[in-house]
Amino acid sequence: PVPQDLDLEILEAVMKQLDAGKIRENLRELSRQPHVASSPRDEALVQLLLQRWGDQASGLDEARTVEYEVLLSFPSPERPNLVEVVVPNGAVLHAYLPKEENVTGEQGGSDVVQPYAAYAPSGTPQGLLIYANHGTEDDFQYLLNQGINLEGTIALTRYGVAGRGAKAVNAAKHGVVGVLVYTDPGDINDGHSFPNETFPYSWGLPPSGVERGSYYEYFGDPVTPYLPAHPSSFRLDSNNASGFPPIPAQPIGFQDAEGLLCNLQGPAAPASWKGALHCEYRLGPGFKSGGDFTEDSQVKVSVHNHLELRNSSNVLGIIRGAVEPDRYVVYGNHRDSWVHGAVDPSSGTAVLLELSRVLGTLLKKGTWRPRRSIVLASWGAEEFGLIGSTEFTEEFFSKLQERTVAYINVDISVFASATLRGQGTPPVQSVIFSAAKEIRSPGPSGLSIYDNWIRYTNRSSPVYGWIPSMGTLGAGSDYAPFIHYLGISSMDIAYTYDRSKTSARIYPTYHTAFDTFEYVEKFVDPDFSSHQAVARMAGSVLLRLSDSFFLPLKVSDYSETLHGFLQAAQQDLRDLLEQHGISLGPLVTAVEKFEAAATALGQRISDLQKGSPDPLQVRMVNDQLMLLERTFLNPRAFPEERYYSHVLWAPRRGSVATFPGLANACSKANNTDHGSEEWAEVHRQLSIVVAALEGAAATLRPVDDL
Amino acid sequence: PVPQDLDLEILEAVMKQLDAGKIRENLRELSRQPHVASSPRDEALVQLLLQRWGDQASGLDEARTVEYEVLLSFPSPERPNLVEVVVPNGAVLHAYLPKEENVTGEQGGSDVVQPYAAYAPSGTPQGLLIYANHGTEDDFQYLLNQGINLEGTIALTRYGVAGRGAKAVNAAKHGVVGVLVYTDPGDINDGHSFPNETFPYSWGLPPSGVERGSYYEYFGDPVTPYLPAHPSSFRLDSNNASGFPPIPAQPIGFQDAEGLLCNLQGPAAPASWKGALHCEYRLGPGFKSGGDFTEDSQVKVSVHNHLELRNSSNVLGIIRGAVEPDRYVVYGNHRDSWVHGAVDPSSGTAVLLELSRVLGTLLKKGTWRPRRSIVLASWGAEEFGLIGSTEFTEEFFSKLQERTVAYINVDISVFASATLRGQGTPPVQSVIFSAAKEIRSPGPSGLSIYDNWIRYTNRSSPVYGWIPSMGTLGAGSDYAPFIHYLGISSMDIAYTYDRSKTSARIYPTYHTAFDTFEYVEKFVDPDFSSHQAVARMAGSVLLRLSDSFFLPLKVSDYSETLHGFLQAAQQDLRDLLEQHGISLGPLVTAVEKFEAAATALGQRISDLQKGSPDPLQVRMVNDQLMLLERTFLNPRAFPEERYYSHVLWAPRRGSVATFPGLANACSKANNTDHGSEEWAEVHRQLSIVVAALEGAAATLRPVDDL
Ligand SMILES: [Ca+2]
Ligand SMILES: [Ca+2]
Ligand SMILES: [Zn+2]
Ligand SMILES: [Zn+2]
Ligand SMILES: [Zn+2]
Ligand SMILES: [Zn+2]
Repeated sequence: PVPQDLDLEILEAVMKQLDAGKIRENLRELSRQPHVASSPRDEALVQLLLQRWGDQASGLDEARTVEYEVLLSFPSPERPNLVEVVVPNGAVLHAYLPKEENVTGEQGGSDVVQPYAAYAPSGTPQGLLIYANHGTEDDFQYLLNQGINLEGTIALTRYGVAGRGAKAVNAAKHGVVGVLVYTDPGDINDGHSFPNETFPYSWGLPPSGVERGSYYEYFGDPVTPYLPAHPSSFRLDSNNASGFPPIPAQPIGFQDAEGLLCNLQGPAAPASWKGALHCEYRLGPGFKSGGDFTEDSQVKVSVHNHLELRNSSNVLGIIRGAVEPDRYVVYGNHRDSWVHGAVDPSSGTAVLLELSRVLGTLLKKGTWRPRRSIVLASWGAEEFGLIGSTEFTEEFFSKLQERTVAYINVDISVFASATLRGQGTPPVQSVIFSAAKEIRSPGPSGLSIYDNWIRYTNRSSPVYGWIPSMGTLGAGSDYAPFIHYLGISSMDIAYTYDRSKTSARIYPTYHTAFDTFEYVEKFVDPDFSSHQAVARMAGSVLLRLSDSFFLPLKVSDYSETLHGFLQAAQQDLRDLLEQHGISLGPLVTAVEKFEAAATALGQRISDLQKGSPDPLQVRMVNDQLMLLERTFLNPRAFPEERYYSHVLWAPRRGSVATFPGLANACSKANNTDHGSEEWAEVHRQLSIVVAALEGAAATLRPVDDL
Repeated sequence: PVPQDLDLEILEAVMKQLDAGKIRENLRELSRQPHVASSPRDEALVQLLLQRWGDQASGLDEARTVEYEVLLSFPSPERPNLVEVVVPNGAVLHAYLPKEENVTGEQGGSDVVQPYAAYAPSGTPQGLLIYANHGTEDDFQYLLNQGINLEGTIALTRYGVAGRGAKAVNAAKHGVVGVLVYTDPGDINDGHSFPNETFPYSWGLPPSGVERGSYYEYFGDPVTPYLPAHPSSFRLDSNNASGFPPIPAQPIGFQDAEGLLCNLQGPAAPASWKGALHCEYRLGPGFKSGGDFTEDSQVKVSVHNHLELRNSSNVLGIIRGAVEPDRYVVYGNHRDSWVHGAVDPSSGTAVLLELSRVLGTLLKKGTWRPRRSIVLASWGAEEFGLIGSTEFTEEFFSKLQERTVAYINVDISVFASATLRGQGTPPVQSVIFSAAKEIRSPGPSGLSIYDNWIRYTNRSSPVYGWIPSMGTLGAGSDYAPFIHYLGISSMDIAYTYDRSKTSARIYPTYHTAFDTFEYVEKFVDPDFSSHQAVARMAGSVLLRLSDSFFLPLKVSDYSETLHGFLQAAQQDLRDLLEQHGISLGPLVTAVEKFEAAATALGQRISDLQKGSPDPLQVRMVNDQLMLLERTFLNPRAFPEERYYSHVLWAPRRGSVATFPGLANACSKANNTDHGSEEWAEVHRQLSIVVAALEGAAATLRPVDDL
């Protein structure tokens, strides 16, 4: 019998049935009310998903929830966080309440969680204000170089460049006692800042808008690292948990930030530190005379956040594979938002629900069942640090690692309606390209998504020539535990900006109470055609991964990455390494071995495809493709980096765009003596990468070539 | 077509063709000359193996060597290690040269490595002698309790109970400056100690015999933990390497030990400390008056060992699988010996070579090719700490973990000719039993190996009733990296003692220059029928694992282990745990879940076996069986225990026979305060076990039951 393979007619039918109108209705319902993690509305959405996926009528085989008890952080409804300007006798000159103006009637509800820095500790630090740009280590160093005493100050920083938590960590190192973080209109609104220039009159962020967010440094439930957060599970004492901001922090809007920043005294900020507030940017410390405040006044930040163990659920929808039920394609998005979360994450969930409707319909009719199993997932508590997805990978670590073919993430499905954005590990590039070539892009161009994409984001590949440029995966959404902890080939798909039209750091109402259905409908994707395009992309990639006889993972596409990393090492590190007796020779050999093995495997697959291979033969090859990504994991490579064990994609702090362990170790060793421990660690990291690449090549070579 | 399955006729043919005479000839050649790791004769044996396996005529598909550059330790040929009795002015009263008497003409060669404690540091410590029994922590504590000052002493200890290196570690903690280790005739010779009672007149250890051995605490090459020891690999500075004995140590024979011990003064040793030397056992410190030495004389131990990077090879022989070449059964033994190594390890290698001859013959004829691939392995440098096998698992970590069905180890194949000894993880019990039931035991009884075995070593199983008793796997041979580091179901097979006839700690000439071909032929297995029995056992188990359509791994046999561990925890730890707010409830549930899943999987397999399942269906089930052992690995469970990550079989130091992490954590926490870090660690260890068992159950449940 002919083995079950991808059926192009089914694929075409799915593409056709994905309905923009139904996505719109999904989004309206999902974003109707605020649904921060573990809130009543979040729980109601769990029920909605259960009903959509679990009902017999849905066509899916099963839906279930998995609940975890996780440590979240919330502001106090009774004692709102506050930023005050006070004089030495304690009198308050001015109080800023970080609360968004009720512009469209949706910002005032009691279920709107007021802006805060999740996991920032409580406290009421007070001190002279300084302006610290993005709050990077370099920024604080610059202030010190200007002779500014940071001890006891409050640092006003702007969002961007450094991560949220990193700003507080960097600040605290220099004795700063509290951190404010604001969104500069130059970074988010292309400079616009007046109310009539912003939502609801444009997609711009209103002056009162405040970006909420998690200030936790790692991901996953903070008190159950490496263990699923079941009620009986061991928990760290939250006082012993690491990764929380060391000092109180609070985000504010640019209206309030202007009031503070524009009154600063001190030297002028360098040009690159300046945003679009209507004043000079000065560094402080403290306020100028003749401004709104007295010269001796200080800023007091009152943070009343508290930690709380809360129940948070993932919802899973299962479609059992017909032929290889033990091979899983997982497709997920988070469900929780900061407020209404129309864009983040409901634009993704609306797409997920529409795709599950269409697949369910086919299943019900009996016209289709995938070759492999499909797991649809609605993750909880992502906004607090990818908690639901991380706990899931902890609970099912072995099973997922043994069986998962790929993970597809669609968080925000539409940032903007200009072009596709694809991020992932190299093996998924080809399946994304295949899908993108077959789907029409939204709008009148008539171009395929691929041909539209290449106009916006492109690069010259030594292998393929001119192609769209894929991004890599950091830890920005729920793919992080899949790629970094489990070593599963992962991707994230979205529609995004025309960068010639905006330089906004992200869509302006991100993580604010202005991210509403109305916002999407008016400014992001009025006809939902970009949502539909993403649904088609996700659907096509999902079907290709679940149905193709040969897995559409092109492992040889890793060679380009490896060559890039290797070249960077050769150019920027070789001489230094040689001075310390460390040769890149073994790395060169390992990359060559990998490339040869990957190319030969590609050839074997082509040869097999020409014949009529038996399913067991194909399974063996598919296992090589599936497991390649696993061979890059080394749980002992970076013991201090929680969950990160992928030796190619761990966080890179060094400036050289090479293997992260090598880059980081080199930047640490750089100013140490010959023969130092740090140089030994450089050599160890090099050997780890070489061993991983040799292991990867061994996995790709013919399986009977021992 | 009927899928390829175990062919009983082939199995029968292999059993018949395994020839005792050929094993004897193999052993004669292998043990003809001393072949310590990396010596010229060791290298010559590499060539012998290459020729036996690689030659076209062998029938195997391929043979190859993999060489590593590893850190070994050797005594100085120029400056022999020495034990002297000296008086305060430095004059030597007596000198003992730890060198074996040339009893059979084979103990005198220049290629006989003189007795030493591998990896013990050089030095010439000197002090009053004390007797410290086995050198356990309790033994030293006992001496302290007797008011004996250990500071600056030389401790004379006897082999047994504590590991070699542990004696030095324990001693050094109390200020002891040098350690002697001897073999007591009570422990090794059933009390016999006169030359005419020992080899060559019996299997007993001659008075000059000295047990060599590695005193390194961990295993693997000491300077490349977790990395294969390629020439370019990162190496620890050997001064920074951990696990070496902290003070000089030297093994001696009981003839020399008697000279020292029988001259000690001080209190009489307790009864349990007494061996079979011809005198009272006294504790010291120092020598008695009226003995062979003056009262003020001290013992000086001169150790001149040195560390050296040496090349050591593994030899691999490959038989490619016909149907599932990407599933490996690995069967190995080490090649290196301390001296001639007739029993250890050549009795195992002689069996391995005979089995490879028989399998090669079938392959050449074209009458057989296994369903799965078979890897035959001759490991290097095992005696120094399982180095060759460990480096192999480091180099091919991913590939082996993904694909290896089981590891079979036959190190010493015949300790003695009485009965089978089987050690392994629970899933291999059934395949060992199946083989043992079909093979006749050596000797006139006519019993099967199984029926003979059960007469010697047995237990009552709650599941099976009266059965032979399998042992568990520590780290005594090359299976250790496979089970502890890779999580591969492993076993060790041998013939062994009638314990009613001897209480010898191990066969008497173990690791001495008296472990020769003559010794085996006269005293261990004159007709080589026990060697043949082990060859048949190993061959039968190998064929069953490589050829059976359904893998013969009975995962439900883990339930008995888990229940045993659980019961011990409930009996001996529950109350204590509850006092600290830790409940065993989740563990009970997890064990139940595991048992239910394992039983149900067994039922599904039975049902499948009744029908004619397609190969892909069986492959899915087999993957569950193969990967179960992997689910018990947690590389983050015991970060300080190098390589140990199997949460069920890591070393257990606590006294309760339960899950090792739990047992060890409890014994550490026992005397700490409520709420201590140690009690937190107990809870963490419990959660780690629960998560592993839940993960194991998830792997065994139907693959589409997500
Ligand atoms: Ca957790
Ligand atoms: Ca190593
Ligand atoms: Zn999101
Ligand atoms: Zn978000
Ligand atoms: Zn051995
Ligand atoms: Zn040995």
